[in-house]
Amino acid sequence: MNYKIAVIPGDGIGPEIVGASIKVLDKIAEKFNHTFNYTEVLAGGAAIDACDNPLPQETVDVCLASDAVLLGALGGPKWDNLPGDKRPEAGLLGLRKALGLYANLRPAILYQELKAACPLKPEIIGDGLDIMVVRELTGDVYFGEKGRDGDFAAWDIMKYTRPEVLRIAKKAFEIAMKRDKKVTNVDKANVLEVSRFWRSCVEEVAKDYPEVELNHLYVDNAAMQLVINPKQFDVIVTGNLFGDILSDEASMITGSIGMLPSASMADGKFGMFEPIHGSAPDIANQDKANPIATIVSVAMMLRYSLDLIAEADAIEAAVQKTLAQGYRTGDIFSEGMTLVGTVEMGQKIIENL
Amino acid sequence: MNYKIAVIPGDGIGPEIVGASIKVLDKIAEKFNHTFNYTEVLAGGAAIDACDNPLPQETVDVCLASDAVLLGALGGPKWDNLPGDKRPEAGLLGLRKALGLYANLRPAILYQELKAACPLKPEIIGDGLDIMVVRELTGDVYFGEKGRDGDFAAWDIMKYTRPEVLRIAKKAFEIAMKRDKKVTNVDKANVLEVSRFWRSCVEEVAKDYPEVELNHLYVDNAAMQLVINPKQFDVIVTGNLFGDILSDEASMITGSIGMLPSASMADGKFGMFEPIHGSAPDIANQDKANPIATIVSVAMMLRYSLDLIAEADAIEAAVQKTLAQGYRTGDIFSEGMTLVGTVEMGQKIIENL
Ligand SMILES: [Mg+2]
Ligand SMILES: [Mg+2]
Repeated sequence: MNYKIAVIPGDGIGPEIVGASIKVLDKIAEKFNHTFNYTEVLAGGAAIDACDNPLPQETVDVCLASDAVLLGALGGPKWDNLPGDKRPEAGLLGLRKALGLYANLRPAILYQELKAACPLKPEIIGDGLDIMVVRELTGDVYFGEKGRDGDFAAWDIMKYTRPEVLRIAKKAFEIAMKRDKKVTNVDKANVLEVSRFWRSCVEEVAKDYPEVELNHLYVDNAAMQLVINPKQFDVIVTGNLFGDILSDEASMITGSIGMLPSASMADGKFGMFEPIHGSAPDIANQDKANPIATIVSVAMMLRYSLDLIAEADAIEAAVQKTLAQGYRTGDIFSEGMTLVGTVEMGQKIIENL
Repeated sequence: MNYKIAVIPGDGIGPEIVGASIKVLDKIAEKFNHTFNYTEVLAGGAAIDACDNPLPQETVDVCLASDAVLLGALGGPKWDNLPGDKRPEAGLLGLRKALGLYANLRPAILYQELKAACPLKPEIIGDGLDIMVVRELTGDVYFGEKGRDGDFAAWDIMKYTRPEVLRIAKKAFEIAMKRDKKVTNVDKANVLEVSRFWRSCVEEVAKDYPEVELNHLYVDNAAMQLVINPKQFDVIVTGNLFGDILSDEASMITGSIGMLPSASMADGKFGMFEPIHGSAPDIANQDKANPIATIVSVAMMLRYSLDLIAEADAIEAAVQKTLAQGYRTGDIFSEGMTLVGTVEMGQKIIENL
């Protein structure tokens, strides 16, 4: 098959990790007989430097005309003193909005070979962790009306509409159907009206997925359960604020935060895929960056946007095998392992494909 | 000195754990030459049974006429089917409101002897953990206006006023002055207007405490730092919602959640003290309950409401010593330790005073 991929290398280590990932994708094309047509476009700092705009219209147009978007990382100290709407972050927010991305998928996976970096005791982790946090991205108190009552008070409105909750819940149940068929809804329905509403919408969607087990947790309890018993979770679905907190906490308990991918999905199969780590300008252009988070983001792209499941599985298996062979970039290096750079790590993974 | 203590034994194991704690307090009275006058009053399920009201006016009056309030635990399945305002929890909320309690102090302490129960690896915990989470109790999205737009949407207003933030910040800095002189403010000022306002009020209060180091964390980062590097924290100050999440997460990382006390403070020194665990009706009246969380709540009462620091230290040291001697109630029992009941655990602590 023929697929169009918009590629945004971005800033700092972005071009290197995206470069390594594209080579992996090329190997997949060859092996599985696909054609990937890449169109490289600018966003973030690189776009500011080139055309004084963190999100040129051409970038949006190319993304919308593609099957999926692969993003490296945006931003860096060079652009930190620009006004808010001119900064690289504005490019990312603008991209999410322009592309209608409303579902942030944040897998928290423990790599057995990197178990030593996990902050939790081995008996809690057992044979591994594999949680998918599905965070709503467009609503909640982050995008509600806000204001001040003079010097006396300030406020933000936490709000969700029915269509917003239905579509994110549907996304979560669809994902659960491809996994262990368990959804944990996280809210604060014992206190918040918006949570009671959210929960009733989730329960409505659940009726269409009788095979999926649904349970509910309050957000404070969820924050505890992630530490004490993370293996109970398959898919977690929650709002923008609670998802911000819990997806970061879930990443951290894996100890593999530099290895984790993410997806931001629109309706249907379109999505943007990127590592959760930043642009690490301090190690840019030194062949030091770890490309694994971006390479597994490519695997997510194949799985969720292009429906190429065997291809996605192949990449993930190759990454596992490369780690098992002892190859490590500097950020995950430990005694007795083989230190490699960005390019070599990519090559080893390709050899294992 | 002479002190008036209002005592609310409450439901389930409440009367047993409060009973054991009062005996400890009696021993303190004898040893340090104080007089504690106890007035026992009803709230929660016990009050519903006696007078069909989870918070009789007499209870409020007695509490307000006292120097501090000691509470066991409220609630149980017996009262779960009553309407919201008739349930035991309504008694607790009513008590907080009537007594003007706005600062929830939640220490997260790791007991060295119970280190095995901690979910984090030993290298993260090091020689122990001692965090104080100061959570605002009266404002935030929990108490803002709320409503629905028909079937289409629901909303809650997240709001803080200047006096609310100033008083909780002052409480946090006062506590930090008696500890390691470090305050971490947790908010989401990169997104929320109420957080930017909150932060500016905290910074205003900080000027009065030049000896205290103040830093700021976003709530998602704080949830990560608690897992990966909890030893960086001394006092955490935050709003009602973020405090709900983070105080529970902080308790959980100690692994000693059944051993932790709490205080809810009003202006000045008045406060209500209670264990963070529940009323455990399944083990009530069997001499099985662990009284330690309530006994260390009494130590908090001495420290924060009565200014009896040496007396508070003595109780905490006696608890540590009793654990070091190997005495354990069933909930914290492990191989090789000596199993004791509620009454005997209290007696061993008294012997160690
Ligand atoms: Mg976050
Ligand atoms: Mg809580």
